[in-house]
Amino acid sequence: MGLNASQKIIKKHLVKGNMKQGEEIAIKIDRTLTQDSTGTMAYLQFEALGIDRVKTKRSVAYIDHNILQSGPENADDHLYIQTVAKKHGIYFSRPGNGICHQVNLERFSVPGDTLLGSDSHTPTGGGIGMLAIGAGGLDVAVAMGGGEYYINMPKIVKVNLKGKLSPWVTAKDIILEMLRRLTVKGGVGKIFEYVGEGVKTLSVPERATITNMGAELGATTSIFPSDDVVREFLKAQGREEDFSYVQPDEDAVYDEEVEIDLSTLEPMVACPHSPDKVVKVSELKNVKVNQVCIGSCTNSSYVDMMKVAHILDGKTVNEKVSLTISPGSKQVLNMIAKNGGLASMVEAGARILESACGPCIGMGQSPSTDAVSLRTFNRNFEGRSGTKSAMVYLVSPEIAAYSALKGHIADPRELGDSISIGMPKEFLIKDNMIVSPDETGEDIKVVRGPNIKPFPKAKPCQDITSGKVLTKVGDNITTDHIMPSNAKLLPYRSNIPHLAEYCLTPCDEDFPKKAKENGGGIIVAGSNYGQGSSREHAALAPLYLGVKAVLAKSFARIHKANLINNGIIPLVFKDEADYENIDVMDELVIENTLEQIKKDVIVVKNKTKGKEYTMSFEVTDRQRDMIKFGGLLNMMKENRA
Amino acid sequence: MGLNASQKIIKKHLVKGNMKQGEEIAIKIDRTLTQDSTGTMAYLQFEALGIDRVKTKRSVAYIDHNILQSGPENADDHLYIQTVAKKHGIYFSRPGNGICHQVNLERFSVPGDTLLGSDSHTPTGGGIGMLAIGAGGLDVAVAMGGGEYYINMPKIVKVNLKGKLSPWVTAKDIILEMLRRLTVKGGVGKIFEYVGEGVKTLSVPERATITNMGAELGATTSIFPSDDVVREFLKAQGREEDFSYVQPDEDAVYDEEVEIDLSTLEPMVACPHSPDKVVKVSELKNVKVNQVCIGSCTNSSYVDMMKVAHILDGKTVNEKVSLTISPGSKQVLNMIAKNGGLASMVEAGARILESACGPCIGMGQSPSTDAVSLRTFNRNFEGRSGTKSAMVYLVSPEIAAYSALKGHIADPRELGDSISIGMPKEFLIKDNMIVSPDETGEDIKVVRGPNIKPFPKAKPCQDITSGKVLTKVGDNITTDHIMPSNAKLLPYRSNIPHLAEYCLTPCDEDFPKKAKENGGGIIVAGSNYGQGSSREHAALAPLYLGVKAVLAKSFARIHKANLINNGIIPLVFKDEADYENIDVMDELVIENTLEQIKKDVIVVKNKTKGKEYTMSFEVTDRQRDMIKFGGLLNMMKENRA
Repeated sequence: MGLNASQKIIKKHLVKGNMKQGEEIAIKIDRTLTQDSTGTMAYLQFEALGIDRVKTKRSVAYIDHNILQSGPENADDHLYIQTVAKKHGIYFSRPGNGICHQVNLERFSVPGDTLLGSDSHTPTGGGIGMLAIGAGGLDVAVAMGGGEYYINMPKIVKVNLKGKLSPWVTAKDIILEMLRRLTVKGGVGKIFEYVGEGVKTLSVPERATITNMGAELGATTSIFPSDDVVREFLKAQGREEDFSYVQPDEDAVYDEEVEIDLSTLEPMVACPHSPDKVVKVSELKNVKVNQVCIGSCTNSSYVDMMKVAHILDGKTVNEKVSLTISPGSKQVLNMIAKNGGLASMVEAGARILESACGPCIGMGQSPSTDAVSLRTFNRNFEGRSGTKSAMVYLVSPEIAAYSALKGHIADPRELGDSISIGMPKEFLIKDNMIVSPDETGEDIKVVRGPNIKPFPKAKPCQDITSGKVLTKVGDNITTDHIMPSNAKLLPYRSNIPHLAEYCLTPCDEDFPKKAKENGGGIIVAGSNYGQGSSREHAALAPLYLGVKAVLAKSFARIHKANLINNGIIPLVFKDEADYENIDVMDELVIENTLEQIKKDVIVVKNKTKGKEYTMSFEVTDRQRDMIKFGGLLNMMKENRA
Repeated sequence: MGLNASQKIIKKHLVKGNMKQGEEIAIKIDRTLTQDSTGTMAYLQFEALGIDRVKTKRSVAYIDHNILQSGPENADDHLYIQTVAKKHGIYFSRPGNGICHQVNLERFSVPGDTLLGSDSHTPTGGGIGMLAIGAGGLDVAVAMGGGEYYINMPKIVKVNLKGKLSPWVTAKDIILEMLRRLTVKGGVGKIFEYVGEGVKTLSVPERATITNMGAELGATTSIFPSDDVVREFLKAQGREEDFSYVQPDEDAVYDEEVEIDLSTLEPMVACPHSPDKVVKVSELKNVKVNQVCIGSCTNSSYVDMMKVAHILDGKTVNEKVSLTISPGSKQVLNMIAKNGGLASMVEAGARILESACGPCIGMGQSPSTDAVSLRTFNRNFEGRSGTKSAMVYLVSPEIAAYSALKGHIADPRELGDSISIGMPKEFLIKDNMIVSPDETGEDIKVVRGPNIKPFPKAKPCQDITSGKVLTKVGDNITTDHIMPSNAKLLPYRSNIPHLAEYCLTPCDEDFPKKAKENGGGIIVAGSNYGQGSSREHAALAPLYLGVKAVLAKSFARIHKANLINNGIIPLVFKDEADYENIDVMDELVIENTLEQIKKDVIVVKNKTKGKEYTMSFEVTDRQRDMIKFGGLLNMMKENRA
């Protein structure tokens, strides 16, 4: 039985387990990337592993998130990352060099390799035929140290692209169509593998737009098997030697199948406040627009930019619209600065921002109150723009640029003949903003600004685990509740003591105070605890505050894993009625913890109420070890010792 | 007896008073400018005047300060300014169009005219021969309404420039030499008029660098009488019709004289933390540099940028330096985007920021902790960069660019032959980012975001003025103490109720609370109360909190004027020992206030202590009227009624 491309890459990298859908497997990671918002913590964790040099083929640290630098914290983080990278064998992409996924695609992507990145849009690398997965900082730290990456074997979904896109219909519209059909939950536990005759009509950056925004499907990753289009791209990047074909066997088998006839697609728009609220642009005419933002890891390639330049050329941005453009990388910016594309944008009145994430992560350019903002980005969650009342629509660069001229959401097909911007035969290659690591790193001093605080470490599990119930929260608590993230707190991603002061405060203002007064304790929660963003700070802050266990009706998958990674015991009520029975400040105890954690069921005693609760503890054996040793880092050290 | 150029312009615009040095005069204002940080308040004040259309030749509202937009407040302010401008006859320079002073020089400056701007660097316009003065927002609002501007007739200082600059010595070095000689207090009450054979060797933007940073001398303004160099500049800007000669008479008389032999100057540096701590660059070799920032209203012209591009061309920014470049205007950015200059900067690794104030006002790009930052700006006060511990040095673009390559403060004369960048014969003229006002404004709706709060208005003076002493502060309290301004509070410049929560809190955390609980009251202060920035928010916030009078040992000049403008009575202890006698919460009363304010001495009774204090009240008759009517706005309305 033949293999598909995803299976081939997984098979080549398989370290543990069987490639049976749903079962845990471990794969070797060839390459890693970090960005600065998650990277500081990832490198602190890497340092905690005590490994001198990274064991990957190549690891790259990018600076692209916190580049506004309001206060010294961001620049301090950048300097820490730059020096820690130099010391430990990691390449450093300097601020201004571009968005991690765009630069990685241009300069470091290799078909058939595995890439683990501490950013949810790491699957962008699937556009060139990598198996590229987003993960928490600790997973990336472990991978840098040579450790394998654990994952449940995903379903592989065949996405069969037929036909060819019509003029003014774009790669963005393909992924918006996927989101329209499958919703933001439709990709959970799946890899989308794009095949079919339509694939060869798509350039590498177009494919990357699709795999990038596959993250919004909730997918593990997405991939385009590598072909001659990839070879041409790598050749134009001066890297033909990195090319290899990774194609599914002719008799490859898939778990599911989706078919899209490209020729039937129209320009689309994702409406507020979810990337899957997709309609045709023709249904939205005359929605007045206040802001248009072009860029982000989804749509900031050279061709995207040149199309925008072409649409804007000789025109003026509508008086009522603020148009921002963030080219994806120094390479892109440099090329359009050389060929006049950028001059056309400036002349039309576009505001040129740095090559970085910028408005996509709410890092500046928050729209005005109640504004309509059209963005070529991948997410339009409520409030993500920094303006709670803003209405954010997601579109292609073509719709964005044309709407910026018109002042309302407009259909670029009105422009007539489509624009033909060819892929460059040679990109402008100048890697002078990528700093190579030191050969040995021995003489490199890592610079830690005052905002970079030591990383909290869990202690090995004790035989008696006890503590007071510090708080009791309801259902659907998100990681945004557990560890708020906003422009005010983002500069403190490397300062857990500071962040911990805000831990769970949206639910319980006194939580940090109570945790400190009681020397830590236990959290009681409703169902779906820890949903939303994968940020591991939602486990690190409770760890810092001495939280030993969380009792919940159910957990979101990634947060549960993050708790275990950090030595916090996640327990699920067998009988949800027990939830009602517990009150804040009740004294709970898990006796014989070291024995109990070997089993699927754990008994928790409520000494205050004189009751017992039966909790389920369904985890892998590896995770039982993690709890025993006090988290993944401690376990890694034990294993090495 | 002949007149100098400054006197000629003042004479032409004189409305009241005699041009006798030190005496109050009133002049007619031809033109105004605002920026967005002070502009929102200025337009709220203009609206409060109840005048439909501006009475100036031309008023322009610029957006250049708060353009990072972290949250909706800034975009809301921009939208308010855009709509209020359109309604009342004001031109609107959209965000991205550039720094107010650079754009104003390019597109709206007229030799011989008067310009009043709500920004301290308004004297930039003196580079083209305008009498350009910085003032508070209320003064600018009044000027827009056709009111005259009051000022004490300044001393006119002749600055005689001899000879010619050596290679790599620049206009920046001329003004740094002025600061070295005269210090930051050396220009108080003075206008610097630059004459002599050296003047004709300086282009208009070079002259503007000098008049711009003349603000750091504390000067009222600086001016270069207009000549053929100005005519050429205006011609290249397509505005030759705006040209006229404004030259001093041959027998012109000046109050003071300074002479600088340009040929003896060397490249200079202003060291932390004051613009007058000036040394030769040759004295500072090997100071390691972490950040270099090029731009600001001082040094962001086309020629400045092209020199930088030339120095960077084919090189790479030192690995340890973050180099940012903010071109001064869309015109400049567009020209260097067209001619390859920008491409050279990008290729070398510069981070290109928007055409705006940016790092100069601490709006982003705060350096790392303890960093050395080299900047082509005009101010290097401690903490202004957003990083309290940063060491900021002020330099020319040439020193900045060369040091960015070397990684330490470096002397550009090491580069050998100087660069020759000629002034363009034709600038790229495209004013499409300047929005014209509506013809009548009748149908224009002014949009006020939720952050734009009504402007506090003083009440007419009552015959009995009484209140409790809310706080008692020491000597040298700055307007930064009275009304803190930082990245957190800047977005609230149009929200006095919010700002008032922070009023005087650096000195007395409970001040706002006490003021509210007691329905307002009185402030007691030591000497030099209200020194520092001219911000009128330091009067508006106390006004909002119900402060009726301030008793101090002495006042800083501008703050005293701001208090009077807002109907708050400033009184000075005749006997400083009385200061010691007053305690917080003492009940003070000024009986027969309406009679007493007519005189130079006012008696304040302390009902709690049973004592009387003799206070001096030395103000002009016009200011007595302002106190009587409850501030300048109320007085203007009375006068019109």
